[in-house]
Amino acid sequence: MDWRGWVAGAAVALMAAGSAQAASPKAAVRAWRQAHEKEIVADFSALLSMPNVATTVSDVEKNAAYIGGLLEKRGFRTQLLTSEPGTPPSVFAEMRVPGAKRTVTFYAHYDGQPIGQKGWISTPFEPSMRTALPEARPVDWKATAGPLDPDWRLFARSAGDDKGSIQALISALDALKAAGIKPSVNIKLLYEGEEEQGSPHFARLVAKNLETVRGDLLIMGDGPMHQSGKQQINFGNRGIAGFTATVYGPLKPLHDGHYGSWAPSPTVMIASLVISLRDDEGRILIPGIYDDVQPVSAADRAALAALPAVETSLKTALGLGRNIGPPRLADGYMAPTLNVRAIHAGDEGPNAANAIATEANASFDFRLAPGETPARVHALTEAFLINQGWFIVRGTPDLATRLAHPKVVRINWDEGESVATESPMEGPAAKAVAEAIGRTVGYPVLRLPFSGASSGMAEIVNQMKAPMVGVSIANYDDNQHAQNENLRLGNLWDGIEVYAGLLADLDW
Amino acid sequence: MDWRGWVAGAAVALMAAGSAQAASPKAAVRAWRQAHEKEIVADFSALLSMPNVATTVSDVEKNAAYIGGLLEKRGFRTQLLTSEPGTPPSVFAEMRVPGAKRTVTFYAHYDGQPIGQKGWISTPFEPSMRTALPEARPVDWKATAGPLDPDWRLFARSAGDDKGSIQALISALDALKAAGIKPSVNIKLLYEGEEEQGSPHFARLVAKNLETVRGDLLIMGDGPMHQSGKQQINFGNRGIAGFTATVYGPLKPLHDGHYGSWAPSPTVMIASLVISLRDDEGRILIPGIYDDVQPVSAADRAALAALPAVETSLKTALGLGRNIGPPRLADGYMAPTLNVRAIHAGDEGPNAANAIATEANASFDFRLAPGETPARVHALTEAFLINQGWFIVRGTPDLATRLAHPKVVRINWDEGESVATESPMEGPAAKAVAEAIGRTVGYPVLRLPFSGASSGMAEIVNQMKAPMVGVSIANYDDNQHAQNENLRLGNLWDGIEVYAGLLADLDW
Repeated sequence: MDWRGWVAGAAVALMAAGSAQAASPKAAVRAWRQAHEKEIVADFSALLSMPNVATTVSDVEKNAAYIGGLLEKRGFRTQLLTSEPGTPPSVFAEMRVPGAKRTVTFYAHYDGQPIGQKGWISTPFEPSMRTALPEARPVDWKATAGPLDPDWRLFARSAGDDKGSIQALISALDALKAAGIKPSVNIKLLYEGEEEQGSPHFARLVAKNLETVRGDLLIMGDGPMHQSGKQQINFGNRGIAGFTATVYGPLKPLHDGHYGSWAPSPTVMIASLVISLRDDEGRILIPGIYDDVQPVSAADRAALAALPAVETSLKTALGLGRNIGPPRLADGYMAPTLNVRAIHAGDEGPNAANAIATEANASFDFRLAPGETPARVHALTEAFLINQGWFIVRGTPDLATRLAHPKVVRINWDEGESVATESPMEGPAAKAVAEAIGRTVGYPVLRLPFSGASSGMAEIVNQMKAPMVGVSIANYDDNQHAQNENLRLGNLWDGIEVYAGLLADLDW
Repeated sequence: MDWRGWVAGAAVALMAAGSAQAASPKAAVRAWRQAHEKEIVADFSALLSMPNVATTVSDVEKNAAYIGGLLEKRGFRTQLLTSEPGTPPSVFAEMRVPGAKRTVTFYAHYDGQPIGQKGWISTPFEPSMRTALPEARPVDWKATAGPLDPDWRLFARSAGDDKGSIQALISALDALKAAGIKPSVNIKLLYEGEEEQGSPHFARLVAKNLETVRGDLLIMGDGPMHQSGKQQINFGNRGIAGFTATVYGPLKPLHDGHYGSWAPSPTVMIASLVISLRDDEGRILIPGIYDDVQPVSAADRAALAALPAVETSLKTALGLGRNIGPPRLADGYMAPTLNVRAIHAGDEGPNAANAIATEANASFDFRLAPGETPARVHALTEAFLINQGWFIVRGTPDLATRLAHPKVVRINWDEGESVATESPMEGPAAKAVAEAIGRTVGYPVLRLPFSGASSGMAEIVNQMKAPMVGVSIANYDDNQHAQNENLRLGNLWDGIEVYAGLLADLDW
């Protein structure tokens, strides 16, 4: 079925709304949403109740089949794409619109981060509606009369990152259909299934299906909105390269009273390694690491300067007595960052012991600015570690290796690395997106040269060589990648309008 | 019942062995042990099968009652001593020997370290006999004909630390009784029940019962033998003071792509704090920390120099490509050590996320040399941290505190601290111990000025002001404080002879 079949049942509405086609469909979409809030929440809850951690392929396959079904019902031709059997599929869906001269590929991911973090106030895959923060009391939305409070939040893994944007687009399609408003572009949807695992198979998947997924514009629906609550678009992402470092002490744990003054301590060694790579102010200490970074353009500087100041209120919200790096949050995206994800060494709590541990590890991720490559970052990092006296291995060192080298470190780089991407902010497609969203929200959209985050989208951008615009709808405080992920209802409502505007009001 | 009652049933043996009383009872004890190996192992297994982590008071109370029963059967008057109700009891037992002019108080502890470490090859409280290292295959000792292999090891929590010395003393009593050999001293036994928790109530317990437990000499049966396998005695212990440091980042975990260049990272902060306190070479970096340490005496230097060199073989056994601190292991005991027990920050493994953690912690223990006090170490450590820009709190900081201070650290000092103890190596009682053990083992016993470890014994030494000698029987590689703790059977056999020598051959 294509657009014609889909519209047939809405002919009257189409004729009635025909004259609105040239402008934003916002009013019609809002009216439809206000009449269907509970259905939308029910549909979204059903989507969120499906476990979607990509390490369990059967779980993401169920999500893919379900999402494919939702799109088939809305008139899309769908298929599941994989790079190779047994890997998480991407859902691909297409709808051709007669008369449309452009094709837009919308990207999102339907997989979610792992859920094992401590402190979830509800079960990650049992969506829980809660009142506004900070109370976040459970609320029976089904029994509520009248409109749902837009400050309520639906708590579930992937609510904000990234099923929210999938739900917003599907609801936007429903709203447009009900209003008989025809999309202004051909639509392709590409919903990835292992972005949160670093998209290890996505480059190959895109390469195998390049003509299938190709569009004149890529819209990436991922990430949070600006902290000011204003709609923001970006034109790329930082790259990513991560690794785990394991250092080795004695083959057996030792009593630290007897051996603490003589046996090297892996806890101290790992802290020393961490501090050699990055300081408390956020500076990366690896020589050469900033050399490949492209200078920030005047246009990027201007866009960054135009972002509302959020830093003071953010510090209060996050309980921070200081910030590191540049004073303005987004200025830091223009350079690489080294984050120390975790350090683990020795036992704590009830198993704590006055002992020297046998090994210790730390885990890191670099966010790469335009100009940097993962391969170059690997080389610089390892050269620096070797220069600091470390002997690098890739597996558990044997006895001979331990005895031959005073300091042995196992380095394993993550799968799923990517370079940064940056599309021109001033291209015609990018401008059309900014204008369509501006008409929907009623103010000039904020423009971020590129997001601080990374994305599997980088692979499509690089292979397809089409302009790319990131459109985020999630509240900035959605706890993505953490316990108590949530989406604010008002953000979902606004997101539906934004997506409807993109589907029906894009023109260039 | 006293010694007379105990000996009544062995009158014939007593008369037969009467002339051996002046020399080491070694031959008679060895003969008895060779005839009773399986009974000894069965008794020891029963003792080790009782869970004894002191945080579960009911468990240690069961151990105390059981050990009290074993001693009553051997003719001791016993009582359980506590500092206050609900705390782990110490087992006190006494036997007066007619004609004995000295009273010796034997100290050991019957509680064990926590058992939650990963990698146990058997269940901690199901003692498992295994063949010599490195194979450590399970072996059915009950079904073995002939003598048990002295290189076999019994694996269980507390096998080496410290129920082994309790078993050795009890078996020595049985051997002496069977041979009709009378102890040469009055015997007091004081078996502590929360040494591995840092002896938080032991000082008070001793103070309350000082006259009860007082002896002319304290023998401490704890810790491992010298790495050379030779019998070693020591004349004190280092002190201890430990703490946990928790540092704070954002109130909620943050996506590190969006916030990694701007929000302070607790993982980096804790690594930075660790490295500010101690370097990879073992040097403590807190100004003044070495100032109170007493100079090492000429006698101590001579004793240290006389210890066999074990460092090269130890490095090979432990897989270490280097050592830190002084080249000779025991030389390091003369100064304080700062051990970093653990660092924990962020999630790893299946829950790893590209996120900034909300907090991170590290846990430390100082081993204190003679001259230092825990109070002075607290003050120096905290002054240094404050000087490094940390604001110190004792509980979880509230929002106002977080916002008012760029770097907040929660410091909580451990309960159960102690100063170092050092008895004279050349006193008459100390010499008598060295000579009695020398007669048993057949070579001059090694003398260590004081152990690198700490002990609840410090409290008795300080209060009782009697000379103290540490006598260890456990193999140095007994994995104390770790998974797979074990006692080598040959060490138990030798330990029985050493204790029998102390009980029957001490004279000064």
